[in-house]
Amino acid sequence: MLGPSTVADVSERELVARIQQQLPPTPPWVLVGIGDDAAIVEPERNRVEVLTVDAVVEGVHFDRAFVPPDAIGHRALAVNLSDLAAMGAAPRLALLSMALPSTLPLADFDGVVSGLTSLAAAHRLQVVGGNLTRSPGPLVIDVTLAGTVKRRQALTRGGAKPGDDLYVSGAIGAAAAGLALLRKVVGHQSSVVSPQSTEDLRRRMMADDSRLTPDDWRLVTAYLTPEPRIRLGLLLGRNRAASACVDLSDGLADGVRRIAEASGVGVIVDASVLPIDPAARAFFEAQRCDPVEASLEADDYELLVAVRPRARGRLAAAVRHGGAPLTRIGRCTEDRAITIRHSGAEATDAALPTGYTHFRPFDKLRVVPSDVEGR
Amino acid sequence: MLGPSTVADVSERELVARIQQQLPPTPPWVLVGIGDDAAIVEPERNRVEVLTVDAVVEGVHFDRAFVPPDAIGHRALAVNLSDLAAMGAAPRLALLSMALPSTLPLADFDGVVSGLTSLAAAHRLQVVGGNLTRSPGPLVIDVTLAGTVKRRQALTRGGAKPGDDLYVSGAIGAAAAGLALLRKVVGHQSSVVSPQSTEDLRRRMMADDSRLTPDDWRLVTAYLTPEPRIRLGLLLGRNRAASACVDLSDGLADGVRRIAEASGVGVIVDASVLPIDPAARAFFEAQRCDPVEASLEADDYELLVAVRPRARGRLAAAVRHGGAPLTRIGRCTEDRAITIRHSGAEATDAALPTGYTHFRPFDKLRVVPSDVEGR
Repeated sequence: MLGPSTVADVSERELVARIQQQLPPTPPWVLVGIGDDAAIVEPERNRVEVLTVDAVVEGVHFDRAFVPPDAIGHRALAVNLSDLAAMGAAPRLALLSMALPSTLPLADFDGVVSGLTSLAAAHRLQVVGGNLTRSPGPLVIDVTLAGTVKRRQALTRGGAKPGDDLYVSGAIGAAAAGLALLRKVVGHQSSVVSPQSTEDLRRRMMADDSRLTPDDWRLVTAYLTPEPRIRLGLLLGRNRAASACVDLSDGLADGVRRIAEASGVGVIVDASVLPIDPAARAFFEAQRCDPVEASLEADDYELLVAVRPRARGRLAAAVRHGGAPLTRIGRCTEDRAITIRHSGAEATDAALPTGYTHFRPFDKLRVVPSDVEGR
Repeated sequence: MLGPSTVADVSERELVARIQQQLPPTPPWVLVGIGDDAAIVEPERNRVEVLTVDAVVEGVHFDRAFVPPDAIGHRALAVNLSDLAAMGAAPRLALLSMALPSTLPLADFDGVVSGLTSLAAAHRLQVVGGNLTRSPGPLVIDVTLAGTVKRRQALTRGGAKPGDDLYVSGAIGAAAAGLALLRKVVGHQSSVVSPQSTEDLRRRMMADDSRLTPDDWRLVTAYLTPEPRIRLGLLLGRNRAASACVDLSDGLADGVRRIAEASGVGVIVDASVLPIDPAARAFFEAQRCDPVEASLEADDYELLVAVRPRARGRLAAAVRHGGAPLTRIGRCTEDRAITIRHSGAEATDAALPTGYTHFRPFDKLRVVPSDVEGR
């Protein structure tokens, strides 16, 4: 084979050039972009800045054996965009820092970058700088995002009051089911070659297992290329519809706890109305897992929103163009307990906690999700 | 031993709390700090923003066997501060993202954080957010910095013109000599326990090797706890003294090339006047290395500055309070070549290139410094 094949075969400069080729032209507010010691940007007038950083680490947050490069890049950015969505912020710029194993194929590097820059372009997010370094271990992708929001339209975790309703956007559980499905199918495959792209993976999964339905593939893409709820977050902020908001990147149960703690309220959730993705529910049941338990702990790119009863009209206005339905799943209470009310009506043979379940404080929580899992 | 001993023994929340304990109170411009999905800050009026990210990776940029935790934290921030210095920016805020091996002792985690937060406090830099994750491999510390500068006072690489003089701040070569010395001494030590802190390392080095002079220790600290030239960069910008500026975090030879390329000029450097640290020079000579060659490639936290001849007065004003002397080492030329003029007067037995040396374009450059080295 001719030409360079891994990132170690080319210079850092060449790698930076390959990133730049995938970027749109620099907007006028970027005074100095990639190529100097630092970037220089003009701040946006009459707005405050929203800043977040998140890393995805090979072997912790993704497995290159079954997550294609473009999906790795997409997910590395999506986890950050979801944080901005939860603050009601409009994405503005990104800094991209990658630690690259020297064995990383150049095509995979390009794939990671393309997944990331495609999602960035879809959200008019400008990559203004970054850093490339060698990794003696896993591939690590660190993304820093800056967004902006009008000061009084920012969403935080801390504004919920007793009596506020709790809503969740879209559907939950699909990404977790997709990951489990992906592992199962890829585990059965004879081929040990990692997928080149999401499209390559789709073709191979369809070829290898004709029982794979379009619904199955939808679950897989919910894991590989989640769509953060940027538009919904913006509209919730603009309409002043939410008293508190958090994303579900550590699961619904965790999100509930975060709002409860930050706002100083308790929460009652009605598990029977959780908007569990129907295909995910069927998948969990087939695996003899409780769909409710699985979905409560599943990492999703949805928003959990607290809403004052009198703000329901404004909420409806926000949801109309927000790109995702909202489902009322519970309410905030004076009593500081966090309670999941489970009707027990689900058809499942797992030993289900019925009635009230008090979550233990998650004190022994993790430095990180406990294994290679979606986040 | 009682109590938790590694980062895996405590929750992410506990680790975040340990970071927060080391931070100063949040200033009023931080509207939402650590603990929400993202931070919210007010931009500074009448200033543009300077953004940079850099990662340090265990086994690439530092070796835990001989770099104490506080020095790891110090260096992780210093490399970024040096980028801001090169832009003439005042540091404002940081986001800290760490990937932690589960075996990392909790005391080492605290040490890394303390090294970083001490340097941050010295520069009135606020840590407003971050991310902690598990690493299945090396310790990785990614720091994103934002600083501010008045638009017309920003320094870039691209403003040098033929006839401009080139200056370098402080002295070069000390950090590289310090790293080599550290490796040598630690390699001889019977103890295999990594140093707990820079002070612990000092005590042990003095005890193990009584020939170690204060000058030796100064070289070692030049590597472990470099001082980025923030104040000098600010004053160069305020006084409009520099036509171009770059930091030497990839070495002087690289810095020269960066300014030459970005500005479209050539450069002649007079190697005989390079401000090589005298102790470093002695160390290199004792090792039978050419001090000039070693210092040209050494990573330092100094600034390389191009200055119009008519701006010398303004330069003098900037240097007066800048905290470091500047040495004129060459000038920019119309001819685009990069030339290091070596007088050959150095007392060294190494095979020295004399007269003119044209650097090859560094095309086979690295994804990263080629080994565990200072940067």
